[in-house]
Amino acid sequence: MMNDTPLLTRDAFKHFLPIQTRWNDMDRYGHVNNMVFYGYFDTVVTDYIMRVGGMNPDVDTVGGLVIESKCHYHKPIAFPSVVQAGLRIGKLGRSSVRYEVGIFVDDDTEIAADGYFVHVYVDKATMRPTPVPDAMRAALQALCVNDNEF
Amino acid sequence: MMNDTPLLTRDAFKHFLPIQTRWNDMDRYGHVNNMVFYGYFDTVVTDYIMRVGGMNPDVDTVGGLVIESKCHYHKPIAFPSVVQAGLRIGKLGRSSVRYEVGIFVDDDTEIAADGYFVHVYVDKATMRPTPVPDAMRAALQALCVNDNEF
Amino acid sequence: MMNDTPLLTRDAFKHFLPIQTRWNDMDRYGHVNNMVFYGYFDTVVTDYIMRVGGMNPDVDTVGGLVIESKCHYHKPIAFPSVVQAGLRIGKLGRSSVRYEVGIFVDDDTEIAADGYFVHVYVDKATMRPTPVPDAMRAALQALCVNDNEF
Amino acid sequence: MMNDTPLLTRDAFKHFLPIQTRWNDMDRYGHVNNMVFYGYFDTVVTDYIMRVGGMNPDVDTVGGLVIESKCHYHKPIAFPSVVQAGLRIGKLGRSSVRYEVGIFVDDDTEIAADGYFVHVYVDKATMRPTPVPDAMRAALQALCVNDNEF
Repeated sequence: MMNDTPLLTRDAFKHFLPIQTRWNDMDRYGHVNNMVFYGYFDTVVTDYIMRVGGMNPDVDTVGGLVIESKCHYHKPIAFPSVVQAGLRIGKLGRSSVRYEVGIFVDDDTEIAADGYFVHVYVDKATMRPTPVPDAMRAALQALCVNDNEF
Repeated sequence: MMNDTPLLTRDAFKHFLPIQTRWNDMDRYGHVNNMVFYGYFDTVVTDYIMRVGGMNPDVDTVGGLVIESKCHYHKPIAFPSVVQAGLRIGKLGRSSVRYEVGIFVDDDTEIAADGYFVHVYVDKATMRPTPVPDAMRAALQALCVNDNEF
Repeated sequence: MMNDTPLLTRDAFKHFLPIQTRWNDMDRYGHVNNMVFYGYFDTVVTDYIMRVGGMNPDVDTVGGLVIESKCHYHKPIAFPSVVQAGLRIGKLGRSSVRYEVGIFVDDDTEIAADGYFVHVYVDKATMRPTPVPDAMRAALQALCVNDNEF
Repeated sequence: MMNDTPLLTRDAFKHFLPIQTRWNDMDRYGHVNNMVFYGYFDTVVTDYIMRVGGMNPDVDTVGGLVIESKCHYHKPIAFPSVVQAGLRIGKLGRSSVRYEVGIFVDDDTEIAADGYFVHVYVDKATMRPTPVPDAMRAALQALCVNDNEF
């Protein structure tokens, strides 16, 4: 739809989180609103980095700051359904991470949306960039891919 | 905490929907924000009345209008976790329905919050009360209880 | 609509905050979703207690925990419009506060919704009730009314 | 921060809408969550195209479908504050529109975030692209710029 690049399939992603859609995810048009997809992105990423990467916002002195996000919408989705949010890491730098997410619905094999956001890890006191913590880095490396970015 | 009434347990509810919490359900205090519980209420109810009761907002000429809602918060909940939203029907009138919801988290047996909202079924063109449609009534009767309301 | 009690008018409230409605406040039915009204409640209250009452969630050791909330919906509202959220304090106890809110839209003199929520002030470390801080109490007393509650 | 391109200033935008921030715009970190900025985008655009462009989602047979969105975050913002959402049209094609938005806060002259989303106007019945309606086109042309896109 957007260009000639083939759409990603589920096997392009390394980790999935099922997310129940909610009635109020839908806007006036009866489809999940465009901003809500970023909530799915946030949720699959934060669930993973808290459960696997050891992130704990109550005590951590280092945290991820979102500096950029993007989404391509391939087809509308609606409630009621369960989103399957796929995650992979597109780039893992010294202090930045690019999380790439694909949104699938129920048993549909075609991707509904894909996008990414970039975290810069910062010292919360100074808000200056700081290296990705070691435990987090290990968790993220497990999801890294070498594909061209989207 | 609120009074001497014993808190409800899971067996007080007749239908459950698991709902993945989301990162942005939490507010500045690190707990799920009070308004988000009403989103859980809406979701368990609307999922049920669309899947089982035959509601279809794209074509229906009758719809439920929320006229009252209430929630008691018993203990804070946080992301990441999966809410188990329990549903029962406290009152089923000619044109109104009282949906009662209990919010549980993961395997916790203690209720985190409970509340309700009341739908008046209206003709969408005139916004005047109209009887609950038959198919919907049958679906709702399956969840009715005779307990005292909360 | 609900009973014979006359609806509240704007002069029943002591403080107002204008809140721009948002596109995604509306759900599938083209009206502001029932849960969003609690977001208006939270916003008029928190804006006031931060600006006037001295609340600072970044440093405070005491905070308000919502234990109960309720809303009556009198007529639907829609985007685009500006909500005028009226606030008054219905009860001011040793450690608890009942914030009562009325929702009006643009220049409409009829109330669209009213409701309340109850804060118990707690020590954030122990989560045990603690007296409302003095500066906060003074700010809240300025909005107190002796009307019967709704 | 992102590159050497100078950040946009308020005079780069042709229309502004003030949007009251809300308590629950903030996430666990005490800043407005990244997804909420897209809600500001949606709001300034939809307010404009409904009020000025004649869009009426209750009766229109043509509507805008979001196919792409992006945001760059330049500095965190927090509640309580009033966002000033600036709007301009970066591209106005036969059936597609690129809305570019800049987010400023209170009297701050530095931009907090900027981004865009792209609407393809479609026939709601067939979901096929259709020309931007004439009244809408006139409203959008009034906000067009020839700047390089961001």
